[in-house]
Amino acid sequence: MTIVPVVDLLKGRIEIDTEVTVRGWVRTRRDSKAGVSFLLVYDGSCFDALQVVAHHSLFNYENDILRLTTGCSLTVTGKVAESLGKRQKLELQAIEFKIIGWVEDPDTYPVAAKSHTIEYLREVSHLRPRTNLIGAVARVRHTLAQAIHNYFHKNGYLWVSTPIITTSNTEGTGKMFRVSTLDMENLPRTREGGIDFREDFFGREAFLTVSGQLNGETYACALSKVYTFGPTFRAENSNTSRHLAEFWMVEPEVAFADINDISYIAEDMLKYVIGVVLDERSNDMAFFAQKIDKDVINRLKIFLHSDFIKIEYTEAIDILLNCGKIFKNPVYWGIDLASEHERYLTEQHFETQVIVQNYPKDTKAFYMRMNTDGKTVAAIDVLVPGIGEIIGGSQREERIDMLDARLEEMNLKKENYWWYCDLRRYGTVPHSGFGLGFERLMTYVTGVQNVRDIIPFPRTPRNAKI
Amino acid sequence: MTIVPVVDLLKGRIEIDTEVTVRGWVRTRRDSKAGVSFLLVYDGSCFDALQVVAHHSLFNYENDILRLTTGCSLTVTGKVAESLGKRQKLELQAIEFKIIGWVEDPDTYPVAAKSHTIEYLREVSHLRPRTNLIGAVARVRHTLAQAIHNYFHKNGYLWVSTPIITTSNTEGTGKMFRVSTLDMENLPRTREGGIDFREDFFGREAFLTVSGQLNGETYACALSKVYTFGPTFRAENSNTSRHLAEFWMVEPEVAFADINDISYIAEDMLKYVIGVVLDERSNDMAFFAQKIDKDVINRLKIFLHSDFIKIEYTEAIDILLNCGKIFKNPVYWGIDLASEHERYLTEQHFETQVIVQNYPKDTKAFYMRMNTDGKTVAAIDVLVPGIGEIIGGSQREERIDMLDARLEEMNLKKENYWWYCDLRRYGTVPHSGFGLGFERLMTYVTGVQNVRDIIPFPRTPRNAKI
Repeated sequence: MTIVPVVDLLKGRIEIDTEVTVRGWVRTRRDSKAGVSFLLVYDGSCFDALQVVAHHSLFNYENDILRLTTGCSLTVTGKVAESLGKRQKLELQAIEFKIIGWVEDPDTYPVAAKSHTIEYLREVSHLRPRTNLIGAVARVRHTLAQAIHNYFHKNGYLWVSTPIITTSNTEGTGKMFRVSTLDMENLPRTREGGIDFREDFFGREAFLTVSGQLNGETYACALSKVYTFGPTFRAENSNTSRHLAEFWMVEPEVAFADINDISYIAEDMLKYVIGVVLDERSNDMAFFAQKIDKDVINRLKIFLHSDFIKIEYTEAIDILLNCGKIFKNPVYWGIDLASEHERYLTEQHFETQVIVQNYPKDTKAFYMRMNTDGKTVAAIDVLVPGIGEIIGGSQREERIDMLDARLEEMNLKKENYWWYCDLRRYGTVPHSGFGLGFERLMTYVTGVQNVRDIIPFPRTPRNAKI
Repeated sequence: MTIVPVVDLLKGRIEIDTEVTVRGWVRTRRDSKAGVSFLLVYDGSCFDALQVVAHHSLFNYENDILRLTTGCSLTVTGKVAESLGKRQKLELQAIEFKIIGWVEDPDTYPVAAKSHTIEYLREVSHLRPRTNLIGAVARVRHTLAQAIHNYFHKNGYLWVSTPIITTSNTEGTGKMFRVSTLDMENLPRTREGGIDFREDFFGREAFLTVSGQLNGETYACALSKVYTFGPTFRAENSNTSRHLAEFWMVEPEVAFADINDISYIAEDMLKYVIGVVLDERSNDMAFFAQKIDKDVINRLKIFLHSDFIKIEYTEAIDILLNCGKIFKNPVYWGIDLASEHERYLTEQHFETQVIVQNYPKDTKAFYMRMNTDGKTVAAIDVLVPGIGEIIGGSQREERIDMLDARLEEMNLKKENYWWYCDLRRYGTVPHSGFGLGFERLMTYVTGVQNVRDIIPFPRTPRNAKI
């Protein structure tokens, strides 16, 4: 007997009257008075469940089929048939049912077929992928990740796995998690009484990375086009819908690229990956449009067909100063744009995606390239309606004297960046890159508001249970 | 002017006589007496460098070109031409040279064009991707990773990002790194005097994951076919050529699959990804065959065309007992196979890849499915010549009573596994999966012996510098 995924059957890839076996879980059961049961069976291969028609003549109809509840696992063999129902074109007419796993006490099944709040589902993150919502998130997340890999592969980039455990701090700021094997009950001490990290696993203090960028640059300055796609970490005590302590980041880094090139790459990549999701996950996207954000598909289609507007930071400040709106965070030249400013620009003023470029140097990290005005650096932020900043990038400072001066100005220890400076001593090249928070992109693509529902097992303050 | 990657030019994708610009770094320079210089320029897009011919009539020939040394960056515009040299078919005849970055003090350039030991290159991991060897490793690593994603995508799997920070320990053993934000100089204490991890970031003790499997199972038991591909960690103080503290692991998990299915998937996947590397990276592989392991390509071709031999653990013990060889680790029914045993089986006895299955329960983890003999569990190890174990997998225990009994038998706290047990309470299904160490596969594919040379920035005891 041929075993087929539900998606193959529903997509019409299997001829009518063919006998096939499907394996999956019961979503719902409905019994007609005529002694026929209609089961919806899903296997995760697509959004829709398969209608399986079970006639009372099946030998285990009474004992098994009439006892099936949401979540029971089974294999069913039957004939593919056109459906008389309105909701589906095709169905499976059961010949043989085998129940694999029952649901212990169906009345207390944590993800029974009724409406659950999204907050409740977070409490059962081991079972929530069985729901329509989190199943759809998982499929779109896969497709988006795969599209990102494909985009870079097609365009000649190499995926580079930058280290998770690090002894340097890319941004020079940001709270980091310490990684250690020291016995906390019996900490080794230096002569001066401090903790002796020479005794720790790596012989020095080590942390979880906040970005793969600096390491990524070493590969871009050797192999031209690279990207990372891996987990990054922030130990910030932020309990918001936008923050995770552990999240996935995409960071391309391109030799010989300037700030304009990297703006183009950001736009081209976003449009490609969003296009793939609309193409390949239309049923999942239709569900998001129906249940989560009715405008989501329309919004993405407009995104695909509109050019990104590019403005200078200085222009952005002028717009904010002259718009007549009062912001919580005061506006003047020199501030880093707050979320409310970004959203005003992209949602109210331009009503489309905007790239803001050339920020005041004091708002940005040491590695961004100094502009000729001596006041701004070649940084970009990509802002999108409903989200605000989705990408932050820059041209990197490739001139050793300028980099040295910036490190000094920012009180960063040169000896920690000797290897980073080496890239500027030996065959330096202009190069640029950006960081894209994968979960933030997922919230934009799906309309699901909270990043906790976008990643399978969210890590947030006081929460790493499962 | 069209900018092209070196690979496009060398692959003949650009017509003869076309004017193009190439950007990259100098590998070597050779000057003829006739006033013509031959530069090899690489940009990472393929193994081979491009021969650029520079005539002394170029305006900056004396001042720039004759001063070029290994590692200098440049852009060069020229005409694509057939080469008279024997080493290449095509070359670029320079019209205009622009030097972008010089090499500070070429005599001390850490990766000058001479022979460096592989050990020395580890000291300059920020510059070593500029070498032939590490460049080839980076390209093959990318291609292998991409092939893995493609294999699973094509076959209907969803990529699931399982958490890096975890409060559970998959294997019930293995040394883990602690992740904490507690102030080590001022540790919070419980009433009893212990460290109060309730004050830590996650409100409990947290670690870096050793495997995504248990979390992966929750998604397989909802969406049928999933895989992880992410970093995993072991805080083992092992300074060997096979161990990394941080390494990448691939873990498929498949609902309704038994031990035979997962053996087939392991074989099918390995053959697919190795086939892709041989197809797409022939020049890089030729370099490995020339410099690292002359048998490597032949070995992989044989791998592709031979079936995996499958034997029972019990048979393996018989073979080892009767082979007349003395092993360091004594052989008897009940041992876990040591590396020397595995290598004898795959290298000496069968001379091909072998799957050993059904190991004594005491050698394996709690989650493996108990066989009807009550003594063995449905585990597989895939052994390959030159490496030993490359994949370890199993059918998972899907029966709640058997799982409970195993947890008890192994003194594991049931309350830590409540969510894992839930998968068996609600619509349980037989399911199986395996773990593939990505760096170990890379050593098999490239012939490069030490995993430190396979990952960009290796993390090993006392080493996390760059």
